[in-house]
Amino acid sequence: MQYETHRRSILKAISWRTWATITTAVIVFFFTGKVALALTVGFLEVFAKMGLYFFHERLWQKIRYGKREVPAFVLWFTGLPASGKKAIADRVYEELKCLHLKVDRLDGLDVRPLFPETGFSPDEVNRHIKRAGHLCAMLEKNGIIVVASFVSPFLKSRDFARTQAQCFVEVYLKTTVEQCEKRDEKGHYRKARAGEYDYFPGVHLDYEISKNPEIVVDVDSVSQDEAVSQIISYIRKQIIQSKI
Amino acid sequence: MQYETHRRSILKAISWRTWATITTAVIVFFFTGKVALALTVGFLEVFAKMGLYFFHERLWQKIRYGKREVPAFVLWFTGLPASGKKAIADRVYEELKCLHLKVDRLDGLDVRPLFPETGFSPDEVNRHIKRAGHLCAMLEKNGIIVVASFVSPFLKSRDFARTQAQCFVEVYLKTTVEQCEKRDEKGHYRKARAGEYDYFPGVHLDYEISKNPEIVVDVDSVSQDEAVSQIISYIRKQIIQSKI
Repeated sequence: MQYETHRRSILKAISWRTWATITTAVIVFFFTGKVALALTVGFLEVFAKMGLYFFHERLWQKIRYGKREVPAFVLWFTGLPASGKKAIADRVYEELKCLHLKVDRLDGLDVRPLFPETGFSPDEVNRHIKRAGHLCAMLEKNGIIVVASFVSPFLKSRDFARTQAQCFVEVYLKTTVEQCEKRDEKGHYRKARAGEYDYFPGVHLDYEISKNPEIVVDVDSVSQDEAVSQIISYIRKQIIQSKI
Repeated sequence: MQYETHRRSILKAISWRTWATITTAVIVFFFTGKVALALTVGFLEVFAKMGLYFFHERLWQKIRYGKREVPAFVLWFTGLPASGKKAIADRVYEELKCLHLKVDRLDGLDVRPLFPETGFSPDEVNRHIKRAGHLCAMLEKNGIIVVASFVSPFLKSRDFARTQAQCFVEVYLKTTVEQCEKRDEKGHYRKARAGEYDYFPGVHLDYEISKNPEIVVDVDSVSQDEAVSQIISYIRKQIIQSKI
């Protein structure tokens, strides 16, 4: 999204007044300053200045000074399977769209079909997360805010994604394997325990917790609404500040 | 890039004049219409309207009506190896950046390192081009113009890339294998003929020409400057029209 700085608007105000006053002075001088004509002048002024204002606006349209973009960032949701990443990330994405920000959404489920040959072994997951990190960085570089949600259980590839981005905000959804198993609507944990998966985070592999994620949401003790507003409030205060 | 429509500027002009004239009327009434005070009024007006203009501008900053983005598109350069895709695409990219458009550049050499396991067999090339098409579409969907250059010798995957984009502009660099071999600074054709490559377009495989590429540049009969201006002129006329 673009926004205009206050300095730009101050300059526009000075520039506008200069032209408008010169116009009035010329018209008044032309009509020799008679009071009776003042209303006529005012009337004329409405039309004269209206046109002038319009061309003045179009001229400023060519001037780029003071036009800025809200800085982009990567909002990376990470946590155990069934910790609620997708649901919370979807809602945060919608909230950011409502602020007229340029935002895109990347989820494991969207990205995997692009690379159908990618499996779930630690090596393959690391490669997959690195590619996702590249994708995020490519969008961010172009001014797009990215709301990404990937289990991304390994520090190595998550940190790689961080190094690719200009501004990386890690949102860690804190919970326990037991809570996730209770919540697990898709039955992934059950299948993992039954041996249908080989490398399931929380069952066969540990989720590696980052030392200092930017945001930690304790999903077992806050509601989804609270989680969303906690994240949006961080973004407003720490990243986009008063720019929108 | 954002731009403002003429209707937006007309509305701003009407809105501004309403406020400015009401201000003047109130001030003149307050000073009982005396000529001697007219200059004072004018003087006061400068300051009063200046502030008003500023707040008026800031108010409009909140109004989204008439703010538009220049539509994005995918400019896809295709042609034999050493037909000059990269050089011409790089220059077109620079020209579009000079127009303050939001534009990104994708080249085979940038994208391949993301997928180090991708080889050069027809199957692998088709998969690679499909992924590149996805990347382009992802950027385009977010309002980013993409200047892409890939040999992309097969109709199948090139047409897939076309179906992914909203607005796909295929730039076919027309030339012959003989001309490319003469131009080939990197010695790829020599290596291909010496058997170092298995699937080299122009040597082991035919380049499949599209029926109706949007732009055909006969690189053997026009200079690089002419090629660039031919492409930029197409974009100005057919895609971005008078919007910038």
